[in-house]
Amino acid sequence: EDQDLLLAAAYVSDAQYNRNVPFETSPRAIRLYYFYNHWTMQVAIYFFICVDLSLALFEEPALFPLPFLATSIAEVLCLTAFFGRLVHFAKVTPQMVFWKDTKNICIMVTIALTLIDLIIYGSLEAVNIHSVRWSRALRPVFLINFPESRQIRRTFRSIRNTLPDILYVFLLFMFSVLMFSLMALKLFGDRGLRTVEGLPYFTNILEIAFELYVLVTTANSPDVMMPAYNFNWWYSLYFITYIIINTYIFMSVFLAVVYNNYRKHLKNEIRKLAYLKRHKMMEAFNILKVKVGTEFVVMEARWRRLARTVMPHISSPHLELLLRISDEGQKGHVDKMNFLRLADLLNIQVITMNIKRHPLEEWMPRVYQSSASLLVQRMVRHRIFVWVYDIIILINAIFIALDEKNPFISYAEWLFLSLYIIEILLKLYTYEPRAYFGKKQFWNWFDTLIIVAALVATVANTTIQSASKYNSQQVLDIVLILRILRLLRVIVSIQRFRLIVTTLINIGPTILTFGGLILVVYYVFAIIGMEAFHGKVRFFDPNFTTPDALVCGNPALKDSAFARDRYCKNNFNDLASSFIVLMELTVVNQWHILAGGFALVTHQAAKLYFISFHVVVVILIVNIFIAFILEAFFVAYSLEKSEVETAIERKIQELGVGIQEEEMHDGKLVDNMDVKDGGFSGDDGDNKRKALKGLYFRIASKKYRTVDALLQQMFESEIAPEDEGPPLDEILNFSPSDIYPKVPNFENSA
Amino acid sequence: EDQDLLLAAAYVSDAQYNRNVPFETSPRAIRLYYFYNHWTMQVAIYFFICVDLSLALFEEPALFPLPFLATSIAEVLCLTAFFGRLVHFAKVTPQMVFWKDTKNICIMVTIALTLIDLIIYGSLEAVNIHSVRWSRALRPVFLINFPESRQIRRTFRSIRNTLPDILYVFLLFMFSVLMFSLMALKLFGDRGLRTVEGLPYFTNILEIAFELYVLVTTANSPDVMMPAYNFNWWYSLYFITYIIINTYIFMSVFLAVVYNNYRKHLKNEIRKLAYLKRHKMMEAFNILKVKVGTEFVVMEARWRRLARTVMPHISSPHLELLLRISDEGQKGHVDKMNFLRLADLLNIQVITMNIKRHPLEEWMPRVYQSSASLLVQRMVRHRIFVWVYDIIILINAIFIALDEKNPFISYAEWLFLSLYIIEILLKLYTYEPRAYFGKKQFWNWFDTLIIVAALVATVANTTIQSASKYNSQQVLDIVLILRILRLLRVIVSIQRFRLIVTTLINIGPTILTFGGLILVVYYVFAIIGMEAFHGKVRFFDPNFTTPDALVCGNPALKDSAFARDRYCKNNFNDLASSFIVLMELTVVNQWHILAGGFALVTHQAAKLYFISFHVVVVILIVNIFIAFILEAFFVAYSLEKSEVETAIERKIQELGVGIQEEEMHDGKLVDNMDVKDGGFSGDDGDNKRKALKGLYFRIASKKYRTVDALLQQMFESEIAPEDEGPPLDEILNFSPSDIYPKVPNFENSA
Repeated sequence: EDQDLLLAAAYVSDAQYNRNVPFETSPRAIRLYYFYNHWTMQVAIYFFICVDLSLALFEEPALFPLPFLATSIAEVLCLTAFFGRLVHFAKVTPQMVFWKDTKNICIMVTIALTLIDLIIYGSLEAVNIHSVRWSRALRPVFLINFPESRQIRRTFRSIRNTLPDILYVFLLFMFSVLMFSLMALKLFGDRGLRTVEGLPYFTNILEIAFELYVLVTTANSPDVMMPAYNFNWWYSLYFITYIIINTYIFMSVFLAVVYNNYRKHLKNEIRKLAYLKRHKMMEAFNILKVKVGTEFVVMEARWRRLARTVMPHISSPHLELLLRISDEGQKGHVDKMNFLRLADLLNIQVITMNIKRHPLEEWMPRVYQSSASLLVQRMVRHRIFVWVYDIIILINAIFIALDEKNPFISYAEWLFLSLYIIEILLKLYTYEPRAYFGKKQFWNWFDTLIIVAALVATVANTTIQSASKYNSQQVLDIVLILRILRLLRVIVSIQRFRLIVTTLINIGPTILTFGGLILVVYYVFAIIGMEAFHGKVRFFDPNFTTPDALVCGNPALKDSAFARDRYCKNNFNDLASSFIVLMELTVVNQWHILAGGFALVTHQAAKLYFISFHVVVVILIVNIFIAFILEAFFVAYSLEKSEVETAIERKIQELGVGIQEEEMHDGKLVDNMDVKDGGFSGDDGDNKRKALKGLYFRIASKKYRTVDALLQQMFESEIAPEDEGPPLDEILNFSPSDIYPKVPNFENSA
Repeated sequence: EDQDLLLAAAYVSDAQYNRNVPFETSPRAIRLYYFYNHWTMQVAIYFFICVDLSLALFEEPALFPLPFLATSIAEVLCLTAFFGRLVHFAKVTPQMVFWKDTKNICIMVTIALTLIDLIIYGSLEAVNIHSVRWSRALRPVFLINFPESRQIRRTFRSIRNTLPDILYVFLLFMFSVLMFSLMALKLFGDRGLRTVEGLPYFTNILEIAFELYVLVTTANSPDVMMPAYNFNWWYSLYFITYIIINTYIFMSVFLAVVYNNYRKHLKNEIRKLAYLKRHKMMEAFNILKVKVGTEFVVMEARWRRLARTVMPHISSPHLELLLRISDEGQKGHVDKMNFLRLADLLNIQVITMNIKRHPLEEWMPRVYQSSASLLVQRMVRHRIFVWVYDIIILINAIFIALDEKNPFISYAEWLFLSLYIIEILLKLYTYEPRAYFGKKQFWNWFDTLIIVAALVATVANTTIQSASKYNSQQVLDIVLILRILRLLRVIVSIQRFRLIVTTLINIGPTILTFGGLILVVYYVFAIIGMEAFHGKVRFFDPNFTTPDALVCGNPALKDSAFARDRYCKNNFNDLASSFIVLMELTVVNQWHILAGGFALVTHQAAKLYFISFHVVVVILIVNIFIAFILEAFFVAYSLEKSEVETAIERKIQELGVGIQEEEMHDGKLVDNMDVKDGGFSGDDGDNKRKALKGLYFRIASKKYRTVDALLQQMFESEIAPEDEGPPLDEILNFSPSDIYPKVPNFENSA
């Protein structure tokens, strides 16, 4: 009995979090599976991944050097942890599945390779031969291949699926670049033209091809054109044609192909997920069902126990609400249709609010309800209060922009700080504090945190200053930044701004997926870059003007644009510097100068490293990022509340325990509740409300949902409620062409 | 009777070309309307628009100076032509409509303003006072407002509709830039840092704001970061945050907002067009209908006359084919449903092919059918023939890349040329020449033209060379370019490449709309730029090293990046140079150097001109361009043949006179026909085929259709055939919110 419940709860929980790990159904395996999914285990594995990745900070070339012994012991520890996790997983999942999964094979191979590399490197090091720690570039494999990194893996899959389509466009694009290079060689090669630096212009086909590739990224426009343009007006037409064809059209085509594939594959994956979810809920239902009359149902008591097992911390009123939605007719059991919705119901955050009076009102009602106090409250709630503070912020901005050497202005700083604190205190006086600092009251939290932090930092700074007459640089910087961040509060009071920002914040969590993806690619390129270029370019204090400092400590850079632009600190001498260089390469501008510099200190072939970085990061990943933002916006535009949410909301309204979402804005919440409590408690919802004991519910706004969730919901609405989906094997082998019977590729479109 | 036919034909023709001019139905007005739509009138108006726009080439500051009298007379002539066209239009359209149309008012006001400006400028010039010809910036109004420029107007409307949504994002973006500027001032202002050029770093709030705006465009990355980064590693985090927020996220949001609005409004307009078309076809039907039995129909003879009036040059077999499709049962009349399709039917290009034997075969059958000749033909048709020529092209490319001073290589050139000519002759020998040079055989034409042009140019060059021992630069350049363009033939033989290129060529016509849009914006900015900056920067021969030449003739540019990079030729001294500068600004890179240079020679406020150009062209127009390319690709992906096309194709197949489109590729056409003629003429289609007298039909592939046509077709398939659409007034007032009842804007999405 208990065993069944545990198994069913595992299925529901998997459906809720979209986990797709096939696990054995023996009691021991289920317990191990619960343990496997426990948050401590997940945190532990992420911790070890972080440690493993950050080892690069301490290994040669190091930001904080540690002996090889220390880093290698740490690495072996990490590897052990990864192996342990894998063994745990092998105990949970059926043998067959485990060995067929490339993710597991990948991890095992990487662990083996890393150990081999460690041994070889260590033994060579022991006899003082320096070799290459090549296995470090494999470390991101762990980040990608653990089941928790579904999102990153999906983006990688999406890239892999895009490759064949991209490849032909890329080849044609390269062909076009080569054709133009040949043309440039013939047109300009014999003219004896010179660049601004006095070098021969367009005389070597390989250099031309590189310059023209750079022109596609626009990084050397218009300099690359100027010598020819100076020579003859008409030659500019060559460059204009080149830019239109290669920069504008080809780059847009890349975006179009990437975007189209991204959409196609995303929809396929989402469809797969939706069917798998349905499948798991069916399994759970089949375990728990009993026959009542003609139909199979789950009894109420069992349903309650299941929900409590899946979500141990669920509040009783919340559970009651969900039960009322699932068991519409209060028949004492939940039918199949409603049972299948359980995972979605649990996923919707319902905020339970315990409406209470203002603590001050309870404590000293006479004073709080006095006419002076009521006047203050009415003032704070008035629109003009917001405007006054907007003006104060504006004046503050002007004061900040002015020179702060003036003592009057530095005193004004204290004035502003106290004005802001008074504002918060007034608000806390007027509104119920627990509602004001509610779970999802992002802007109130933001406001308060900024002010409190500014207060602390300013006080700390003054203390340090007066104690030691020493201006702490770090503290001062933080004070300055906090002082300016306060101005962000203007956004709060302009409705349209607040809406744009919340839209952006919604996309936030999924942007983190791209953070992971970028981290993986950066890490691999940084390790390769450090092995190839470390120590070749050195940074000297910018005030040094010794000849060595002017060429970044490498005579090969004499007269180079790299040295002239003082890019010495853009080097691969440690992980942090490497990441900054890679970031600059991602932004694209001047990347050819960086590439040229590192080619000078090593070999011209080094440019290939930079070109491949451009192709991978800018042409593939940045385009996928743009595709994602576009899709996220369109989905956010086109979707309303889901069917399940609407059901919950309807029920909340029916029970008369709802709060309109609009009322939550502008801090009017408590205000409104007071009115409700006072005036309208005699309405028809009253008796129902009592059933839930003075609580109010509110659906956490859809702001905090991810694009994936939105997409999935969109697809789910297309599956008929009776549709049990195709068999499991089929679901796992879905391909995009199943959705689009008319395969959309170049063959059809042309 | 004739009058009715003419009126109906006018409606059908309007439906066919999507013209939406309401015209009077009096006989005289209809005749005037025909005249108004005649191609000569349209060409004339475009000619005058071109003349009017190109006047800027001849006016001060001129590329080819002409006296003021000459240009002003030309301008008055153009204005007269525009006015005449407008009067003509007023005679055609009802008075009420004419005066309510802002387009007409715009044109009249612009004509009046231009005349006033001409008179003022002329009279001031007469007393030797130089003033500003400000009305020149209004000239693009004519290009936009004549009914022929529907597409450009639509793009402008789309921009206008996007503005409100964009505005708030832009304000928030500017707020963010200002916040970061303030932060930069506080963080870096007092550090005494210096840029590479030794100037103070980040000390003035306005300069910081400009630098940070430039950083959004990535044009000064990483230079703007280097002084702070050199000072302290941690400051790079400030710039990374800035770039992520402003460059990546905000710019993507701009694209998303623009794209979303573009799509929304495009669909609305397309829907309007589809309904208007249906409406016009209904009008035409109502004029021509007669009652036969219980239903209204159009008699066959009348239908024929109508089709002939609309398309005077339609061939009899084509007309016959259309009739068979429209009058399925050969009942002698066309019913309403089929009549409404007429405009679409006429729009589909059906290629009539007169199948004949190879001329050589007719002329000397014995020789052409001899075994040697057949061997040659089989050889040419063989796949290896294509491969051999691909290899020849490759070798040719290598030869081109080699130094051509070598006489052996210059002889090789003649060898390659003759090899290519032999190839074409062999193909003409094997395939039927008229089919080989068929109307839509783009790649064959391309091939032949390139070779013939190269032949002519090479011969001309050699003649000039041997006659005068003088190497004509222009001819040589053309020879060189043609020689390299020949290599493009490789694309023809790689299937995937050919398909990508044809997809791009399809989008071509609509890209021209953007050409028009860009022309309008460039023209206005160029005129303003010329008035503001002409003569401030001068270009000297690059070999001059006089101090004047080094600062572009303006001492204010001393030590500036503008002069150091030798950008002197990037000036506003004539229309052509201005366009090149604007193109460079569109590409974005180094635009801050250009802006800085022109600010130095005039005033810092000049930077506003460059910033506004960036906002208008890069943020708005380039994003719309990208949105368009994306949409075009997706539409091309998602659409198959239209219902009407399928009907035509079915009929063609039914009649047994069709040619599979695939057979057209690879020049196999005639080959296949021979087989058909020889072997399968006894099949069941034989008797039907005779009815159309040995002709073959083929639908011109959808390659050559525009995105608009695709979209319209997509929408039309959603209108039920019986749906007569809402009344005309309602159609004209459609708004996007009718399609999307849930208005997709920030309010809903957040």
